[in-house]
Amino acid sequence: MTSIGIYGSLGRMGQAIAAVAPEMNARIAGGADVKDDPGAIAAEADVLIDFSAAQALEAHLAAARAAGKPIVVGTTGLSLQHHALIDAAAQEIAVLQTGNTSLGIGLLQRLVREAAQQLGADWDIEIVEMHHRHKADAPSGTALMLGNAAATGMGTTLAEAEVTDRAGTVGPRATGTIGLASLRGGSVVGDHSVVFATAGERIELTHRADDRAIFARGAVRAALWLADKPAGRYTMDQVLGG
Amino acid sequence: MTSIGIYGSLGRMGQAIAAVAPEMNARIAGGADVKDDPGAIAAEADVLIDFSAAQALEAHLAAARAAGKPIVVGTTGLSLQHHALIDAAAQEIAVLQTGNTSLGIGLLQRLVREAAQQLGADWDIEIVEMHHRHKADAPSGTALMLGNAAATGMGTTLAEAEVTDRAGTVGPRATGTIGLASLRGGSVVGDHSVVFATAGERIELTHRADDRAIFARGAVRAALWLADKPAGRYTMDQVLGG
Amino acid sequence: MTSIGIYGSLGRMGQAIAAVAPEMNARIAGGADVKDDPGAIAAEADVLIDFSAAQALEAHLAAARAAGKPIVVGTTGLSLQHHALIDAAAQEIAVLQTGNTSLGIGLLQRLVREAAQQLGADWDIEIVEMHHRHKADAPSGTALMLGNAAATGMGTTLAEAEVTDRAGTVGPRATGTIGLASLRGGSVVGDHSVVFATAGERIELTHRADDRAIFARGAVRAALWLADKPAGRYTMDQVLGG
Amino acid sequence: MTSIGIYGSLGRMGQAIAAVAPEMNARIAGGADVKDDPGAIAAEADVLIDFSAAQALEAHLAAARAAGKPIVVGTTGLSLQHHALIDAAAQEIAVLQTGNTSLGIGLLQRLVREAAQQLGADWDIEIVEMHHRHKADAPSGTALMLGNAAATGMGTTLAEAEVTDRAGTVGPRATGTIGLASLRGGSVVGDHSVVFATAGERIELTHRADDRAIFARGAVRAALWLADKPAGRYTMDQVLGG
Repeated sequence: MTSIGIYGSLGRMGQAIAAVAPEMNARIAGGADVKDDPGAIAAEADVLIDFSAAQALEAHLAAARAAGKPIVVGTTGLSLQHHALIDAAAQEIAVLQTGNTSLGIGLLQRLVREAAQQLGADWDIEIVEMHHRHKADAPSGTALMLGNAAATGMGTTLAEAEVTDRAGTVGPRATGTIGLASLRGGSVVGDHSVVFATAGERIELTHRADDRAIFARGAVRAALWLADKPAGRYTMDQVLGG
Repeated sequence: MTSIGIYGSLGRMGQAIAAVAPEMNARIAGGADVKDDPGAIAAEADVLIDFSAAQALEAHLAAARAAGKPIVVGTTGLSLQHHALIDAAAQEIAVLQTGNTSLGIGLLQRLVREAAQQLGADWDIEIVEMHHRHKADAPSGTALMLGNAAATGMGTTLAEAEVTDRAGTVGPRATGTIGLASLRGGSVVGDHSVVFATAGERIELTHRADDRAIFARGAVRAALWLADKPAGRYTMDQVLGG
Repeated sequence: MTSIGIYGSLGRMGQAIAAVAPEMNARIAGGADVKDDPGAIAAEADVLIDFSAAQALEAHLAAARAAGKPIVVGTTGLSLQHHALIDAAAQEIAVLQTGNTSLGIGLLQRLVREAAQQLGADWDIEIVEMHHRHKADAPSGTALMLGNAAATGMGTTLAEAEVTDRAGTVGPRATGTIGLASLRGGSVVGDHSVVFATAGERIELTHRADDRAIFARGAVRAALWLADKPAGRYTMDQVLGG
Repeated sequence: MTSIGIYGSLGRMGQAIAAVAPEMNARIAGGADVKDDPGAIAAEADVLIDFSAAQALEAHLAAARAAGKPIVVGTTGLSLQHHALIDAAAQEIAVLQTGNTSLGIGLLQRLVREAAQQLGADWDIEIVEMHHRHKADAPSGTALMLGNAAATGMGTTLAEAEVTDRAGTVGPRATGTIGLASLRGGSVVGDHSVVFATAGERIELTHRADDRAIFARGAVRAALWLADKPAGRYTMDQVLGG
């Protein structure tokens, strides 16, 4: 049975991962939090999952490299510097970084990229998401991931294409843009729709998360998949195909 | 058979009204456009429909009053001054003003107001609309109408409650606000959803317009309903109940 | 603080009600299950909630009458005989019977009835629901409640109007019918949509339940509302307006 | 400029194809209907489109083979015998047969097959469609196409997997089945959703057709794409990628 070490084990996701692991045929080797030494658990576990804080990522990657263990990085708020650290670590160990560990979102990303590539410039792309009333940022990190997938399919970048301030006399929609809109209310775990619209028809690709446990289950499944992989940087949608 | 006079008869809506009237057991008495005398058609028709330009409204209301004929006002872009003119005219003749002559939207407005009133402050209200890529303003006039209906139900005004710029680190949702979001793409005639969300459940009230002819049919039905009404200002949702 | 007695206190709903009551400013006086005397708890509590089994309803209503206490009946699988017992009890005490204690569904029922009444025979009505893969009956009891609301609004009965077997060469849709369709999958708590469709436009009234706790919270809110009501038979949508 | 010959040129689709061809840089070489000789137009056109009747398919395929011209077959109601005729013709000429010439549906089919393949047996698949009140058969031919795509992705056949009669006490959902449900009402051109549901999350892949012209445009685009292809049997989703 594969054993998992958790960075951020006392956080909400860390606890959820510990709760679902047994039903998924995995074992929790132990956890480490802010003040703990990240090396001990890296030495003991077969694979690591990090849901702690961005500023701790460097130490966690170093511990994983030192122990030669694969690591799933689900920590959010990463900067370009953090991504460079991940790329460097991926020279020596297997690293899977994702902003959303749900398997459904992993697949949706792939479908969105493929649709954006196939449909071409005659189809306008819009993304709308809804989350609970306490969420403080907009659009959601997952909406941005889906926007990146669409932009990649279109042969551009989200930075080039995104439109988030559509209010007032904005004029006709510019070709090649991607609109992002955010709804907030109630206790919604997370709904995302990517809409492709052309003359006379629309395609809508939607994901609805009803239960936060899916993120924990997806993280464990990713860790089990990653456990025997060679060095390299991996993505969530590879887990599904694996 | 009731005869209808059209102000703005050469415009897209004016022509659509002329096309659907015969199948609705109505007769077109004639039309008037920018350079025509509005008095002649007012004298001849049983009821008037105005889909022209805001700056012509004053002359059209005057002609309707002079002839003592009811008038449906579907012209958009009205200012507070235009609304004052309508209120004044409604002292003498029946006037129905609306930003959307679809019967479905008329009903939706009523349902939204009722839901907002019943559900109370624990339910957050969000509005999302989608229109074709050529639409230059956002949110749509109809989304603002629905926002007004929700605000009225909540005992506030849309000016107080509306949030249209949700992008970035916006913080938790403020109680009592109404979010409005706009999608643009393809040839979508007009979809509107009003979402009410609280802990664990959501209600979504949606209207989908698939064919612009509904606006013309609704205008004719409103005119037929208004033809025998006494002086006063009327709204679209009264047509349904009538 | 109002005290609540629960029939069926060991069941899933009974336990959920006990869990949410404290946060709603209510107190659990106690519970009774199959082998317990229903009279003791009826004497002690201010108001009763029954989520047990249909065959125990007669004894629970008798205990409520003997003690002169209001009762919320959420037990499902009721026959016409059970409804007659409820009507008889409502001569002496306040009884609120419902197949769905969510407040959102209570409102949706009212909106559906109103829409069906206003829109008239030109608008076709269809109902679609989705529930988790373990649900054994179709359509859901809530879909039937919504179908009844639509039928009442149309001036007919669901028994007259319902169509549930639309597969094969079924011919054009008959005017005045109500179609019901059921999807099953995953862990969906319960989604219901009532669609009204006419030439060129549609209205969709949708409820999404994301968390079973809403049914417990709605039952407690109904009990608190019912606690001081005079004898009579009440419905869930009155709770919202109260 | 590519010239197109239309079998069934007086039908609704035939006329729509003639209307959209000029704006798509195609030329209509001419048309043939029931009593016309199919050979003349086959000789003259660069590529053929057949939207006539199933019983005329044999003669049209023969004419296309004799002239060595590619043919798009959009005629519905085909039997296994008709498919065998198409396979035989595809030995000599390029034939693209499809039950739905919308490009969006072509892509959706591909996405559905891919999702069904990736997601695995833990995800239940349900299909729901809505069409106008005059449609006489259910489920729609397009829903069956999407069901086939899902079944292929799952490694089974729709005949094995489909469930269309879910009403009454049907018991828990059987693993590996595909549910199909049909709504009818108003003037809906055609909406299709394929829902994938597992514990805690759902993916919904939806297509909305708002205007019948998309079927004509898709047929012309398929014909232009097919015009220079070697012998073989082709499908709509190849047109998008081409």
